[in-house]
Parts: sequence; C-alpha cells; structure tokens
Amino acid sequence: MSMPPAKLIAVTLGVRDLQAGVRFYEALGFERKFRATGNEIAFMDAGGIVLALWDWDKLAEDAVFPAQTKTNAFRGATVAWNCATPAEVDAVFEQAVRAGAGVLRTPEKTDYGGYRGYFADPDGHAWEVVQAPGFAFTEDGRLILPE
Amino acid sequence: MSMPPAKLIAVTLGVRDLQAGVRFYEALGFERKFRATGNEIAFMDAGGIVLALWDWDKLAEDAVFPAQTKTNAFRGATVAWNCATPAEVDAVFEQAVRAGAGVLRTPEKTDYGGYRGYFADPDGHAWEVVQAPGFAFTEDGRLILPE
Repeated sequence: MSMPPAKLIAVTLGVRDLQAGVRFYEALGFERKFRATGNEIAFMDAGGIVLALWDWDKLAEDAVFPAQTKTNAFRGATVAWNCATPAEVDAVFEQAVRAGAGVLRTPEKTDYGGYRGYFADPDGHAWEVVQAPGFAFTEDGRLILPE
Repeated sequence: MSMPPAKLIAVTLGVRDLQAGVRFYEALGFERKFRATGNEIAFMDAGGIVLALWDWDKLAEDAVFPAQTKTNAFRGATVAWNCATPAEVDAVFEQAVRAGAGVLRTPEKTDYGGYRGYFADPDGHAWEVVQAPGFAFTEDGRLILPE
C-alpha cells in the first residue's frame, strides 16, 4: 500500500461541555455538520477542514493517555484563523470575546509586519487570529503558501 | 467590519528541534513552503491548510503563556489525518513509526465502524490516523462532511 498524499483533515479539541463548545463556535460562524453523531461529539465545518469537539476525557482515552488534571497552562500547540486584513482580525477577535473567549493577547502588530491576537476558547484552547504578509487566499478562501 | 467566513487555516505545533520536526513531517510527505521565513519557523503544506512548526518556548511566549515544564501528558487536543481505507491508515501509521513516531494506539477497528490508530510526533503531539464512515472526499482530497 502506497502512502496517500499528506494531509491534516481535522483538529479535535477536548471540551468539558459539548453544548457550550458548540454554542461558542457557532457564535464565530462555524457550522455544525454530521449531526447524526449525536450529542457526544460535534463536527464543525472549518473551511474545508473539520473542527471537532469531543469530551475531554473520552478524547484522552481514545488516544490512550492516562486520566489527569486538566491544564489551562500552555499545551504546546495553537490553531490559527488567518484573515485578509487587520480589520478582519479585530472583527473576529471582538466577536470571540463577545462569545465568551478569554483574552490572551489583544491584537497588535508583529515584528514581521503582521497583525495578530490570541484568545482562549471556553476550554482553554489557544487561537491565533492573524493577518500575515506573504499569505494569500484563493477565491474560495483557501490559503496559498509561497514556495 | 463584518465577520469573515469562519475558518481554521493553520495548526502550529511547538517543537524543541525545528530541523528534526521538519525531517519527521517531510518523511510523511508534507512539503515545506515559504522557506524565506528562515530557520525559526517552518510552514508545511498540509493539504489546503498549514502545518506550522515553531520553537516551543517562542510559541508559548507569542500566545502569552508563562514558561513552564514541557508536558508529554495529554494536551487536550489531537490532529487527524483522515484516510479513505484501513489500508491507507496502516500505510500512514507504519511510515510515521519508521520516521520516529511513538505508538500511542496501534490501528484497530472502532465501535462506530471505523479504523484508527494514534501516534505521537517527536515532540509528543498526538495524531490520529483514521478511516471513518460518513466522511467522503472531493477529487482534490478535501473532506466532505455530511449535514
């Protein structure tokens, strides 16, 4: 069997309260799909990839990690919502805060000529909202990376 | 300013050794892009979205988390590489292990009729490799979520 093309298709975030998580992401414009999966896991359209929300402990168990205290410290990874302009960054960030996000870093200019902020979702997952030079988008909103 | 469409564009994983991280993901077929960014951060094409690798401490600092001990325990989130068949799952999983991944769960059938395993990348980030019923793909490899 040969290798299929490399791709990251889904990000699954552990949540304490699935309905609260769904409400938060719906407030940001993510649409829930695949509702036949019921009330334990939620799949949301994140623009061609999937943002999945699943019970924190069940996700840990599925990946065979031992049960443990949930951390709100840095978890080693972030997800990003890239925007076309600083004004879009501000709009997304403000909407996230209205929906209950915690402010990690209010949007500001970066030393590489971009503009970004970070918020924490209700379960402490860190999101960057960013406009970065060198990143372009297709008409349907997919990112084009320069070579 | 109105909200742009909701999208998750990039996942950034904290790494201890950028070159080792790049080598690992290149062995899985991810291509490095945007090399003009130099040797501190790597952007890899993950099939329409971006897999970014960045120094663990700098990523934490950018998101304004305090410095701390790096954890190899469960971090609250996983990323997934969805495949079309169990044979593809096995091929990806075996290649990951050959490239140095840790085995969290050897691929096996799930109770929802799918097939999945989990590996840990060299920095302990958990990847699910999965074939799941109900998920279809476009010709260019993007996932189609049922309603």
